[in-house]
Amino acid sequence: SEVKKIAVIAGDGIGPEVVAEAEKVLKVTEEVFGYKFETEHALFGGIAIDEKGTPLPAETLDICKSADAVLLGAVGGPKWDTNPKELRPETGLLGIRKALGLFSNLRPAVVFDCLKDASTLKPEVLEGTDLIVVRELTGGIYFGEKFRRQSEQGEEAVDTCAYNVTEVERIARQAFEIAGKRRGKLASVDKANVLETSRLWREVVIRVAADYPNVELEHVLVDNCAMQLLRRPSSFDVIVTENMFGDILSDEAAMLTGSIGMLASASLGEGSYGLYEPVHGSAPDIAGQGLANPIATILSLALMFRLTFGYEDAAAAIEAAVAQVLDAGHRTSDIAVDKSKAISTSEMGDLIVAAI
Amino acid sequence: SEVKKIAVIAGDGIGPEVVAEAEKVLKVTEEVFGYKFETEHALFGGIAIDEKGTPLPAETLDICKSADAVLLGAVGGPKWDTNPKELRPETGLLGIRKALGLFSNLRPAVVFDCLKDASTLKPEVLEGTDLIVVRELTGGIYFGEKFRRQSEQGEEAVDTCAYNVTEVERIARQAFEIAGKRRGKLASVDKANVLETSRLWREVVIRVAADYPNVELEHVLVDNCAMQLLRRPSSFDVIVTENMFGDILSDEAAMLTGSIGMLASASLGEGSYGLYEPVHGSAPDIAGQGLANPIATILSLALMFRLTFGYEDAAAAIEAAVAQVLDAGHRTSDIAVDKSKAISTSEMGDLIVAAI
Ligand SMILES: CC(C)[C@H](C(=O)O)[C@@H](O)C(=O)O
Ligand SMILES: CC(C)[C@H](C(=O)O)[C@@H](O)C(=O)O
Repeated sequence: SEVKKIAVIAGDGIGPEVVAEAEKVLKVTEEVFGYKFETEHALFGGIAIDEKGTPLPAETLDICKSADAVLLGAVGGPKWDTNPKELRPETGLLGIRKALGLFSNLRPAVVFDCLKDASTLKPEVLEGTDLIVVRELTGGIYFGEKFRRQSEQGEEAVDTCAYNVTEVERIARQAFEIAGKRRGKLASVDKANVLETSRLWREVVIRVAADYPNVELEHVLVDNCAMQLLRRPSSFDVIVTENMFGDILSDEAAMLTGSIGMLASASLGEGSYGLYEPVHGSAPDIAGQGLANPIATILSLALMFRLTFGYEDAAAAIEAAVAQVLDAGHRTSDIAVDKSKAISTSEMGDLIVAAI
Repeated sequence: SEVKKIAVIAGDGIGPEVVAEAEKVLKVTEEVFGYKFETEHALFGGIAIDEKGTPLPAETLDICKSADAVLLGAVGGPKWDTNPKELRPETGLLGIRKALGLFSNLRPAVVFDCLKDASTLKPEVLEGTDLIVVRELTGGIYFGEKFRRQSEQGEEAVDTCAYNVTEVERIARQAFEIAGKRRGKLASVDKANVLETSRLWREVVIRVAADYPNVELEHVLVDNCAMQLLRRPSSFDVIVTENMFGDILSDEAAMLTGSIGMLASASLGEGSYGLYEPVHGSAPDIAGQGLANPIATILSLALMFRLTFGYEDAAAAIEAAVAQVLDAGHRTSDIAVDKSKAISTSEMGDLIVAAI
């Protein structure tokens, strides 16, 4: 089969360690399934600031653009937190999303059996929770005009939140498509009782809904959604929302599963191109010690195989291998009950490779 | 003592029922403590739309302005949800906040002993949770310029989020004051890695912090806060944040206590003036049936006594009376384990009155 090109961004903190394990998995998938991959590493985030003076070097963007998909470890850390805006990893993150047209961020929030008890929610409330937050990723207040000005009440800061019909329609369509392939339920989250952008959002979602008669649509106000995620998490299937609300709600949803360290995410644009990364951060406190859990990154690779390449067999094989290794009782220290029996990052990677 | 004037807004749904019980409590406090109150009722919200053609009639605003404090039941309901903006209860709510200069919304989120099990969180996680969200209430994206325009990608909607130094400083000061009288911990929540308003917010909060050396300040990003509220709710003391984030986080915090139906809130401006209301909504589904729980409204009155009038004795007496009635096992149906033994709205009010 055709050679697929994957841009690999190891990033900061535990990023390089977890990405290294995902690359082992990539290799064994080639051998087992006959797919062919070519990888190219690129600097991004804090390490790019250190080595190239910018979080998103032009060369990195070129590598990503010429690839079919991007695998990202994690970026950021306290070292760069007090830098001026242009020299911060987040700026690179926003830049790469915009430059690659990744307007949609999918964050599945599922409960892993072996982590059922890790949630702070009662098990009976969590039971059956399996939802996806579809977050708009290149619009809204993140990308609107920002400035300072003098006012009569001292200096004033301004952020602008804008959404146009095209932006809302494409993310809405994607969410309806996803919901149609799942349990057929879509919750569109907005603040239409206050925001003009939310009123436009709701109008467009209602219009798009006409094309998806088999998907049941509800509108939920963002404050109410923050509550309902706690009260009835298992009743959600797909949640679609704008950038800022999605940032907050996807983190709340991930955390309530108790499985945040194991969750994968995908950022997609038009077509099949996508950037895949674990939901967890760069965890600088444990970086370089072989303690990190590579599973979320490995599952992000599985998501890439499914969503970008259509390699469902390989995606399913990776997911099954992860489940098998967990079922056999192997745990990295973050998810180990008995920390003294915890295995290392690379041991976990090797076990998953062996199981594939 | 001096006569205090209270504007009473019963509002919609269960509003009139719960407010009636609070008025009974007001009366008995006069008798027991010798305070003197004068009440004046005003139309607001849905009922004002129906009777006066506007959610916030000028007369209502006059009554509120000439009063020392406002007691509000609840507003809104499906009847008015599809009205044009100018004829919606929310518009009245935003209007009254702005007109009365209520820039600060205090929402204590505490766990009631009798409701410990009502939370979806595990009891050991919830243990000791007692926090206040201090939400900025008259600025930010709620009150910024809003409009539609044509763009190359179809119609576009715009909301503007602005904060000036004065607005941030007054709410920050209030939050530090409150934290200083509590456990001395303040979490300031923003999205300073993305928003200009958040960067201004953080700068001002850091500046104000210099005047409160005994308060321990931490900065928490809003997405992280949505997670930490779930992971370690009891570690928060006071949370201060801007309008939109406060809307979302205060609802999340209230819901995780499991006690949302019993929580009081205060909206304050400069000086001692305040508007007090239960955190719960108008619950149109159970309106007029004597099923509503008046405790949150009665505790809102206690908050008024404490914060606006400085009547700590009466405030404490009301709170003790509520605790005593609950300890004796009396429950309205919303909090009753055995619904067949539930008492009515007015029975609950009468028991609390008797206990005072
Ligand atoms: C780092 C930050 C800019 C980013 C965001 O807010 O989008 C992060 O929180 C995320 O969710 O990917
Ligand atoms: C009804 C709505 C406008 C209001 C708000 O968002 O402020 C409500 O959610 C609240 O929190 O009081």
